[in-house]
Amino acid sequence: MKFASEKSSSADGRLLLVAKDMSRAIAVPDIADTLQQALNNWAEAEPLLQARYAALNDGQLSDAQPLSSFNLDAPMPRSWQWLDGSCFLNHGHLMQKAFHLDPIEDADKYPLVYQGAGDNFSAPTDPLVMPNAEVGADFEGEFGVIIDKLPMGATAQQAYDAIRLVVLLNDISYRALAPREMKTGFGFVQAKGATAFAPVAVTPDELGDAWHNGRVQLPVHIERSGEWFGNPNGAEMHFGFQDVIAHVTQTRALNAGTVVGSGTVSNADPTVGQACIAEIRAKELIKHGAPQTPFLSDGETVVMQALDNAGNSVFGAISQTVTLEVQ
Amino acid sequence: MKFASEKSSSADGRLLLVAKDMSRAIAVPDIADTLQQALNNWAEAEPLLQARYAALNDGQLSDAQPLSSFNLDAPMPRSWQWLDGSCFLNHGHLMQKAFHLDPIEDADKYPLVYQGAGDNFSAPTDPLVMPNAEVGADFEGEFGVIIDKLPMGATAQQAYDAIRLVVLLNDISYRALAPREMKTGFGFVQAKGATAFAPVAVTPDELGDAWHNGRVQLPVHIERSGEWFGNPNGAEMHFGFQDVIAHVTQTRALNAGTVVGSGTVSNADPTVGQACIAEIRAKELIKHGAPQTPFLSDGETVVMQALDNAGNSVFGAISQTVTLEVQ
Repeated sequence: MKFASEKSSSADGRLLLVAKDMSRAIAVPDIADTLQQALNNWAEAEPLLQARYAALNDGQLSDAQPLSSFNLDAPMPRSWQWLDGSCFLNHGHLMQKAFHLDPIEDADKYPLVYQGAGDNFSAPTDPLVMPNAEVGADFEGEFGVIIDKLPMGATAQQAYDAIRLVVLLNDISYRALAPREMKTGFGFVQAKGATAFAPVAVTPDELGDAWHNGRVQLPVHIERSGEWFGNPNGAEMHFGFQDVIAHVTQTRALNAGTVVGSGTVSNADPTVGQACIAEIRAKELIKHGAPQTPFLSDGETVVMQALDNAGNSVFGAISQTVTLEVQ
Repeated sequence: MKFASEKSSSADGRLLLVAKDMSRAIAVPDIADTLQQALNNWAEAEPLLQARYAALNDGQLSDAQPLSSFNLDAPMPRSWQWLDGSCFLNHGHLMQKAFHLDPIEDADKYPLVYQGAGDNFSAPTDPLVMPNAEVGADFEGEFGVIIDKLPMGATAQQAYDAIRLVVLLNDISYRALAPREMKTGFGFVQAKGATAFAPVAVTPDELGDAWHNGRVQLPVHIERSGEWFGNPNGAEMHFGFQDVIAHVTQTRALNAGTVVGSGTVSNADPTVGQACIAEIRAKELIKHGAPQTPFLSDGETVVMQALDNAGNSVFGAISQTVTLEVQ
């Protein structure tokens, strides 16, 4: 199944069921008003949604409207818990090499995860807000999952079985602010902006073979201000999402609607480019002794989408324009 | 005004207005069902709540019930954003001295803050859950505030004016898990449990002189398994809550209902004891070369409350029994 959320007077938006070919969508208020509601009640909602999805795909729902006619929010406009991993080891290796950092101990054994703020996710076309020109604003193309509730101590298998939806997201980072916060050991607070999401969340079965062992084996195509920036593939994720989730549940239960991110998609093959500016700057620093590519500036655009083998946009596009916050 | 929340079928509980003398309480569904609702709509709700509070204190509300008759949740049972500071510099100094850590650079200039998980706060008498006996479970007695919404770039004065409620909380920490997470720079995830709250949240004016420059000048009395453990005073908080909030808003807007913590209350005077086990262990390590006081074990109790000059419990008591999670 495919889902989106329409912007509405509720901060949680209005749930839409989206046709498999992404052409049309329809609200399902008799089943759930919001994606959070559907997830809270998945065992009962899922068969009803499946039946409605079949009818939508068969063209039986005359009230369905073109997907493009809706003002779309993030599929999950806010979440009670947003946990973002850093599961592509190539990203860490590049950063360490460029900045002569000590390797993070056991980064291949324990997933790196930070607790993000999920209270206000950005819609796919919301501005990418830069608080000022000095923060070193950057994007990070990532895959993510939205899960059902899990008890403390859940196993990786339980975690895998609780993955309800797969999403594509842009984790906004303010690079100039990160080193000080990382050095304190307290993690990112000032250094992270509002995470943006592609409009459509899909159940894992929609991905077919591209969903493998809790990883999304698809390239994330990134354009910066109209130019190709990279198309790294999610297959190189060192930990599966189930491993990240099970790591976190060692000391906490998780609620339905918790969002878990992969960290910036990053591949060892340099010809596929990268999914964040920090990485190309690291490569430049290693090669030339200095970074050359600037961080984002006011008015630039960032477009991200994941394409399947047939060239279809699996989650729809994130398409943001960088905007300087006027204070 | 004073507020509490009754446990209900909603994860947000049911808002109660509590009499000044803490004797009685009453639901106010005609004004707001939950504390989050009241905060979302504070400008309109506040005068209505003030009028109801006056009537409650005057004994005019015959439907009011003894506060003790309600099954109380945390005053804010969950929050879209929970940001916890570490604003008592004495705590950091002790840790650094005991563990031969490098001082955190500029800790007196920039407030230390981590992004916590607010999706599932504990009620005042909920079990203090220990995932296993090896995590080094600890309590931290802290003050906190619950705020109204703030734009990105809010000043300390705007932040001060947005402080709606003051709370007392127990930030659960798993000390054995913290060093690895701090070393990664990604901050605490496995190392933090569900934060517990004293039952009553109070508007700053209720504190009288004890609310000074965004600090709570009251001692937090802590008992561990029936024995005095400490009564450090909130007055030594290096940053006011407005400074912590303004620090965070440099790169993000905050929603109504965001909860901000002070970090464990800690005083330079050793005779007042401490508000967490890690600190007494640090003192023992410095004095004797080894810590002597163990972390929490199954069945122990932790009681916290802040007393005013007249000996009244300002927020009511947190009273938790340590429980080993059965997995």
